[in-house]
Amino acid sequence: MNPTHALAAFLAGLDYRQLPPAVLDRGEELFLDWLGSALAGAGARPVPLFERYAQRMGPASGPAKILANGHGTSAYFAALVNGASSHLVEQDDLHNSSVLHPGTVVFSAALAAAQDLNSTGKDLLLAAVAGYEAGIRIGEFMGRSHYRIFHTTATVGTLAAAVAVGKLMGFDQAQFIHLLGNAGTQAAGVWEFLRDAADSKQLHSAKAAADGVLAAYMTADGLAGARNILEGDQGLAAGMSTDAQPGRLCDRLGERWALLETSFKFHASCRHTHPAADALLRLMQREGLRHEQVAQVVAHVHQGAIDVLGRVDVPTTVHQAKFSMGTVLGLIAVHGSAQLVEFRDLALSDPNVAAFRQKVRMQFDPQVDAAYPARWLGRVTVTSTDGRTLAAAIDDPKGDPNNTLSRPELEAKFQRLLAFSGARTVEQGQALIARVWQLRDAQALGDLV
Amino acid sequence: MNPTHALAAFLAGLDYRQLPPAVLDRGEELFLDWLGSALAGAGARPVPLFERYAQRMGPASGPAKILANGHGTSAYFAALVNGASSHLVEQDDLHNSSVLHPGTVVFSAALAAAQDLNSTGKDLLLAAVAGYEAGIRIGEFMGRSHYRIFHTTATVGTLAAAVAVGKLMGFDQAQFIHLLGNAGTQAAGVWEFLRDAADSKQLHSAKAAADGVLAAYMTADGLAGARNILEGDQGLAAGMSTDAQPGRLCDRLGERWALLETSFKFHASCRHTHPAADALLRLMQREGLRHEQVAQVVAHVHQGAIDVLGRVDVPTTVHQAKFSMGTVLGLIAVHGSAQLVEFRDLALSDPNVAAFRQKVRMQFDPQVDAAYPARWLGRVTVTSTDGRTLAAAIDDPKGDPNNTLSRPELEAKFQRLLAFSGARTVEQGQALIARVWQLRDAQALGDLV
Repeated sequence: MNPTHALAAFLAGLDYRQLPPAVLDRGEELFLDWLGSALAGAGARPVPLFERYAQRMGPASGPAKILANGHGTSAYFAALVNGASSHLVEQDDLHNSSVLHPGTVVFSAALAAAQDLNSTGKDLLLAAVAGYEAGIRIGEFMGRSHYRIFHTTATVGTLAAAVAVGKLMGFDQAQFIHLLGNAGTQAAGVWEFLRDAADSKQLHSAKAAADGVLAAYMTADGLAGARNILEGDQGLAAGMSTDAQPGRLCDRLGERWALLETSFKFHASCRHTHPAADALLRLMQREGLRHEQVAQVVAHVHQGAIDVLGRVDVPTTVHQAKFSMGTVLGLIAVHGSAQLVEFRDLALSDPNVAAFRQKVRMQFDPQVDAAYPARWLGRVTVTSTDGRTLAAAIDDPKGDPNNTLSRPELEAKFQRLLAFSGARTVEQGQALIARVWQLRDAQALGDLV
Repeated sequence: MNPTHALAAFLAGLDYRQLPPAVLDRGEELFLDWLGSALAGAGARPVPLFERYAQRMGPASGPAKILANGHGTSAYFAALVNGASSHLVEQDDLHNSSVLHPGTVVFSAALAAAQDLNSTGKDLLLAAVAGYEAGIRIGEFMGRSHYRIFHTTATVGTLAAAVAVGKLMGFDQAQFIHLLGNAGTQAAGVWEFLRDAADSKQLHSAKAAADGVLAAYMTADGLAGARNILEGDQGLAAGMSTDAQPGRLCDRLGERWALLETSFKFHASCRHTHPAADALLRLMQREGLRHEQVAQVVAHVHQGAIDVLGRVDVPTTVHQAKFSMGTVLGLIAVHGSAQLVEFRDLALSDPNVAAFRQKVRMQFDPQVDAAYPARWLGRVTVTSTDGRTLAAAIDDPKGDPNNTLSRPELEAKFQRLLAFSGARTVEQGQALIARVWQLRDAQALGDLV
């Protein structure tokens, strides 16, 4: 059996009773983290543009909920708007070796479809696991060459979202094969927007979630797809990768739970900045160094960081600031924190941050690059104003599986996310947290949030 | 000014009064041809799947019309369903050197948006010209390497559709730049489905038209896109082409009317089979040869024909039969015609066609390949059962700009398309023809069809 068909067989056979307790626990934690991100994006550009588009093109009401404004609509438009808002503040989860943000695409599609289909909490968790396990393996399969040009969360995200919805619908192996074909041939999204402060990152997660819904609903109705969309001679890897590894598609299915390897984001910036941010924070705390005492910082990074971050020198928007290594390290050095509030209030306007930004440069590091993307190593070298050369290293950025966030830390992050947009009060946040920690017992999801 | 920005400036400045009469005439002819294709697809799989999806996810009514069933919906869903149905019977127009089917994406998006926006016939024609001129040049820019893996009508079609809608909305240069970014980063669709009798070709044209609508409406509302989505370091050409030619993007803008180079399809098969079909027909008529007298046929073809057609040996569906060189030449040899009716009634079941199919093979021809895609040369060599070797050549397949269809021929084709699906009577077809020949004077398009 070829790897794509083996993956489809696994997805079809995956049973809730098969899921280890740790997977269910982490599934709920990832859902809470996604929910916080989706609410944190409420009201912020470009989310209202997606809300207005849904209003113009979609039905006036419906069973699926747009989290940012509470409106009911069809599953397609709820997935679209929630996919946009949950990726906006750059606090959603990330899987390292696939470089995929699974939550923003999987939960945006799965919750919308679950509300439409009257699914239970157990159904949603099982669907999410299917989406994570498939999406992560497909991302790993597409390889590093893919990520150089393509935004994996956009391309592979379409397949991950589709798989989650297909699982909600109880697809068999043949349907999952069609589904991968139908979702895969819609896979799109390139990095070019980054240098322009464009809104495409939200468009990407929105479209991946929504097109995943489209692929699943049309497959359920009988739309036939390519049988080897991933590995075929004219498939995704042939067109968009030069280092695809078919073996990754069915890597230890049912034994390795890739969902457990997913990282929570701690800093509110692009994940490529986190290892250096953690290393710099450790160094400055260890040495008792203040930002004025730093003459120069070299962040030793993998090539992917240079590809994604390299082109923003002086950010002009908060979103660009999250992709500016100098700005992120500036916030860490000057304020000890690079959370949403620091980005909004200080990243563009604080002269100390701007001054620190000028001291930072990135340098390709072969050792860091070789470990990537399985591990995201943080290495910085600092030259102090009194002439000392100092170095620090971290091997597991905060939020990584080996250094994960506890439930209390996740609850605190969730409340920070809600407070940032003002979408919910602290009390409402507490109620949401309580409901998510009982997700597996929920009989209906229409009023969950 | 870089080529993308020059193209955007041209699109913004394009004025109806600037369009030569021949462009307006051909625009109406292409619209009629598209309309016939959209109606010919009514009722046939997978079009009803798209209709049901629009019903499930879209509004219950709206100003834009689904041609296949007459329902009103929003512009997004009308573009989606009409994009599917107008590409189904493989009779829609094709531009040679870009290998783009412009009509199915441009008119599906533009008519839906024009009905939503209360545009006039002049608006629609101007929008279509913008979509054709941009889409064709972007297709040429992406080059032959792109078409090897990617279905240009799906990828570039998204941009062509978006440009047409942007022109309806009166975009300025800056908006067209954003629009290209927003549409381009949604560009998707690979050829892998062809070997599987999958429904992806209709999914591609449907999604290109619909995502073009999405890109335009959201750009109008302010969604910012990448400024160099085509030529940028992480743009479409970087990710999906190895032979992109930036100069093609603004090739003789305002002087060369690429729309006039678009071919009408005569045979109801994949366009890559047409040159050989015309050459074989000429040879058999010239020699007075009957199909039983043919021992072997070699079709001398360009590489693209082998890439697209090569993998279907014995078709199992009518759609696959249209991509089977042996079947197409079999219909020509046995029945003298390869129209929709022959495909439906004879392509899979006639033993004479099946026998002839076995006699056909394709052979790469350097001269034919060198001329492609600017010209699609037809070259066949036939070995007769009495041992003669016969050859024939045509340089302009029927329907090409140098051998185009007259208005009476287009009207006859239109009526054949309507009769095929039974979507309209002959009298209704006559009334539609009359209205389309007065498209430039139409004040409203809501009830045009």
